[in-house]
Amino acid sequence: MSLSLGFTASPSELLRVGPGFSLAAQPTNASPGFSGRKDDGAAALAERAPVLARLQEQLFAESRFGCRKSILLVLQAMDTAGKGGIVAHVVGAVDPQGVQLTAFKAPTEEEKAHDFLWRIRPAVPRTGMFGVFDRSHYEDVLIHRVHGWADAAELERRYKAINDFEAELSAAGTTVVKVMLNLGAGEQLERLRARLHDPTKYWKYSPGDLDERANWSDYMDAYQKVFERTSTATAPWHVVPADKKWYARLAVQEILIDALASLNLQWPAGNFDLQHERARLKDA
Amino acid sequence: MSLSLGFTASPSELLRVGPGFSLAAQPTNASPGFSGRKDDGAAALAERAPVLARLQEQLFAESRFGCRKSILLVLQAMDTAGKGGIVAHVVGAVDPQGVQLTAFKAPTEEEKAHDFLWRIRPAVPRTGMFGVFDRSHYEDVLIHRVHGWADAAELERRYKAINDFEAELSAAGTTVVKVMLNLGAGEQLERLRARLHDPTKYWKYSPGDLDERANWSDYMDAYQKVFERTSTATAPWHVVPADKKWYARLAVQEILIDALASLNLQWPAGNFDLQHERARLKDA
Repeated sequence: MSLSLGFTASPSELLRVGPGFSLAAQPTNASPGFSGRKDDGAAALAERAPVLARLQEQLFAESRFGCRKSILLVLQAMDTAGKGGIVAHVVGAVDPQGVQLTAFKAPTEEEKAHDFLWRIRPAVPRTGMFGVFDRSHYEDVLIHRVHGWADAAELERRYKAINDFEAELSAAGTTVVKVMLNLGAGEQLERLRARLHDPTKYWKYSPGDLDERANWSDYMDAYQKVFERTSTATAPWHVVPADKKWYARLAVQEILIDALASLNLQWPAGNFDLQHERARLKDA
Repeated sequence: MSLSLGFTASPSELLRVGPGFSLAAQPTNASPGFSGRKDDGAAALAERAPVLARLQEQLFAESRFGCRKSILLVLQAMDTAGKGGIVAHVVGAVDPQGVQLTAFKAPTEEEKAHDFLWRIRPAVPRTGMFGVFDRSHYEDVLIHRVHGWADAAELERRYKAINDFEAELSAAGTTVVKVMLNLGAGEQLERLRARLHDPTKYWKYSPGDLDERANWSDYMDAYQKVFERTSTATAPWHVVPADKKWYARLAVQEILIDALASLNLQWPAGNFDLQHERARLKDA
């Protein structure tokens, strides 16, 4: 699959978390592998949107003829990092008929009465679908670690359960694409301020966001541990610099295109006799 | 709400099913109320897409502060009439985070073991959401009437159950927008033929579509009866000429904009002290 105009190297490879990865060493305001600027990025995003949409349609079409593949984008990030923008501007280019989006909020009492994967499993994408998790099972090893709601042994159990779960998904035909939008603490402050100076964005502001911000470095430690424990060969993490919204969207789009392109999707031939059906329609 | 460029009259009013309506008298290849042609229609659709998206975002935003409103688009049509195109090109302009789409297929054994509304009720949109039914509870008074799976008394029971259900939805804050895409039989034949001459569309073709086509006039009778029995003041039907795809999309978009605009949505002020929060952020 040819790269998007402006990419000099694949973000799937550049941003993948491998051995020895250090979150603290990653710049948040960079645009790795992309030679252009904001306008070029917006143009490239628009240009590549139909490519992503067509790939998903092929995935859907193949599922009608026995193919058991699907894709799942797992999105994690600090508040204001732009998960919503990824959904609106990257996933939004895909036909809604092919998208299965779940936003995981604070668990209900019923969900809390089960193990943490209980509410996750029913939300995995059907065959042919593009699943999106806006937050995910990773909250149970992030916020739970930061606030001490799970001890070290329990966290280890969860990392292992997550790896087993994702390996099972992958073996059953789901390509798992994990993305952490890596926002700088300074940029978050700017974005929170902007919300309080735009009446169309007041509704997005919650005083609690500022409280949670006090735990920033604990969250970074928790993410580092997540990457060490759960960036596997079948379900690797990608850490995407997110201070530049245009870059984050473009990079995630390209990572998704890459993942779908590697499935070598084709338009199905259909399970009928083409000439016979053409003749039937001629006489209809 | 000002009309889309090119509309000389509101499609919500022009296409609404009122007393004395006759489906047989409706042209399928017209573009009522729109003065432009295909290119103008495509331009208008693109121009109005952000208006629809913003209205839905306001609906969603208000739901975060106690507002209990939602919208539900019910789509019914003969095969190839363009339901999928409405979802992709009209609903597709709305943020996926605000869309709740359900495609109703042939019922499962479990669904058949319940009354027909049993599988419908859990799919109604959450507050703040834009729900879409691709096919719906109306299948139970359309295909069931055509194939004689329900007798006259049972059909009457269902019309009443549907009206009660939709009145209840409406009273609870859901604006119900019902659309039948009115395709001509000749245009359907053209579209089926086109599917068999485009390898990217073979997968959409099913030999059964041609069999069902033999029941065309029975389906038209069943739709006529549906309009007579279930086009109510709170949940009226709209019959949209669908031979011109560009017109059908534009008209449905405008009907949805009209429905949302009538809710007088506003950006919520937020439930915090603006000056206090600005000061907190200044010191952060």
